[in-house]
Amino acid sequence: MRTETEGVARERRAVWFEDGRVWMIDQRLLPFELAFVSFGGHAEVAEAIRDMVVRGAPSIGAAAAYAMCLAALNGEDIRKAAGLVKSARPTAYDLFYAVDWMVGRIGAGDDPVAAADGYAQSIIDRCLAIGRHGGPLIKDGAKVMTHCNAGALATVDVGTALAPIRQAHSAGKRVFVYVSETRPRLQGMQLTAWELKQEGIDCAIIVDGASGHYMREGVDLVIVGADRIAANGDFANKIGTFEKAVLAKELGVPFYVAAPVSTFDFDTGEGGDITIEDRGEEEVTRLGGRPVAPEGVRALNPSFDVTPARYVTGFITERGVLRPDEIRKVAE
Amino acid sequence: MRTETEGVARERRAVWFEDGRVWMIDQRLLPFELAFVSFGGHAEVAEAIRDMVVRGAPSIGAAAAYAMCLAALNGEDIRKAAGLVKSARPTAYDLFYAVDWMVGRIGAGDDPVAAADGYAQSIIDRCLAIGRHGGPLIKDGAKVMTHCNAGALATVDVGTALAPIRQAHSAGKRVFVYVSETRPRLQGMQLTAWELKQEGIDCAIIVDGASGHYMREGVDLVIVGADRIAANGDFANKIGTFEKAVLAKELGVPFYVAAPVSTFDFDTGEGGDITIEDRGEEEVTRLGGRPVAPEGVRALNPSFDVTPARYVTGFITERGVLRPDEIRKVAE
Repeated sequence: MRTETEGVARERRAVWFEDGRVWMIDQRLLPFELAFVSFGGHAEVAEAIRDMVVRGAPSIGAAAAYAMCLAALNGEDIRKAAGLVKSARPTAYDLFYAVDWMVGRIGAGDDPVAAADGYAQSIIDRCLAIGRHGGPLIKDGAKVMTHCNAGALATVDVGTALAPIRQAHSAGKRVFVYVSETRPRLQGMQLTAWELKQEGIDCAIIVDGASGHYMREGVDLVIVGADRIAANGDFANKIGTFEKAVLAKELGVPFYVAAPVSTFDFDTGEGGDITIEDRGEEEVTRLGGRPVAPEGVRALNPSFDVTPARYVTGFITERGVLRPDEIRKVAE
Repeated sequence: MRTETEGVARERRAVWFEDGRVWMIDQRLLPFELAFVSFGGHAEVAEAIRDMVVRGAPSIGAAAAYAMCLAALNGEDIRKAAGLVKSARPTAYDLFYAVDWMVGRIGAGDDPVAAADGYAQSIIDRCLAIGRHGGPLIKDGAKVMTHCNAGALATVDVGTALAPIRQAHSAGKRVFVYVSETRPRLQGMQLTAWELKQEGIDCAIIVDGASGHYMREGVDLVIVGADRIAANGDFANKIGTFEKAVLAKELGVPFYVAAPVSTFDFDTGEGGDITIEDRGEEEVTRLGGRPVAPEGVRALNPSFDVTPARYVTGFITERGVLRPDEIRKVAE
């Protein structure tokens, strides 16, 4: 993605390896500050994943791959390191996929930096392919709705849900994006809107509860990302996704899930088997460090919800757009 | 409602008349400060309605009635005052209903204070009746979901959506309430949760996008208020209501609208005819005075949405629980 620091625009990734350290954009500070942090050990990277310095399933995968790279370079016990990194967050399948893949590469004697760089580059290549396959779904003048951030920040670069939008925009089509703010952490408002603005793509922020209102006024398609897709096509994504899927079905709006094949978990039979992370209630009851809820009232804060496959029009993958009953194709 | 100031609990209303002035709880300061403000002129009351010192359709109606009472006491031009007060906000039908009713009473030579007090008391009496009719819908151990604040603060006292919940709780039933926070202004988190806590009713705050997740886990019924109900049963309520109605239908959860008859507008044929207030984008893009959105990205902020009658299981009114095809009964 193109970012600007002190007036200098440059190509950046959400996560990268440089001078023996793992670097990332601290996504918690966006959109007000573009700051970079670096880590020299796998445990610190795991902590950064847990604290959501980096978020988005594919970016988490890349960060995990680089964490394993650091563990190898530092001569750590690879099995122990793998366990620690995997424990950082429970829902994103890419985390487990990336760690296992790196354990295999390190075990095979591959150069850890080249392996992790290759993993990160493969995500970007897949996102570009997702854009090529999904771009044609967006017609000139289309209104698209998305949720949370499945953009460049979530996927090292380019994005999953945002890849078709970028592709359509690059192809000269006029595109308008409804960005639902995505409480409690506002990744839609703070990350997706920030990315779209940088790309010059027209958009407006709405509260999560306004999605149905605008879908009824006229949305051409909804595109979201996914944190894990089960074998039957049920998928987990940011809390609020299920609501948009139900509304889209009710209102006849096509609903697409954009994700690389690494997000498909064929060992998980259905959505009910996916572990949903419950995060602290302070994400809901405090804003900018200040309490906003009445004292003594608790909040429930599931980070994800599960959307059944029957609400999905298609999965936009690097291997093409697949109906839910076609996803087994990518298991081979 | 019972409130506590400096350790002293007392019965309060959201709006009342005392010593020649209209008093209200400043609802913008809750749940952190229970403060009372008073006004001596109808224009100031209209401004307080516009600024949401007082909100909730029935409380707006009561404030408007007292504004007209002040106009009469101050010897103002009643027709002009009526126009000004009506212009404060566009969606809540009670505002227009209350002003017209007071114009009639003042024209008939009634005492303006007694008339306005009678109007406010009639709201409370209706809410109590709504509670009696709606309470039996809530079984012992029920999980209820509500949105925004249709409680005592919104209705002078008692509430509409909260009236059946209070009634069930008073009858000794165990009730649990999912309170959706209601972005952008957080009336669910800050007002409804505050009211429920004061009453000792078990509840938890959720983000708006988590409603579907919890409805699927098991909600026995949804009860919301309404700002205006059209002749065909379509109704306007806080943005996010339509989504809950669609989800409730999809998941087989009964969906009730609690409202006094004064909210029915038989001159408005259907939901599409209801004026929806668009409020400033700062309500979305700023929190606690601080910007939270990227600079230069706009937000859309419709304050209400319209839910078609076909999603409504029943309207809980002071005249009983009515199916959408029965609401004409209350027109007589």
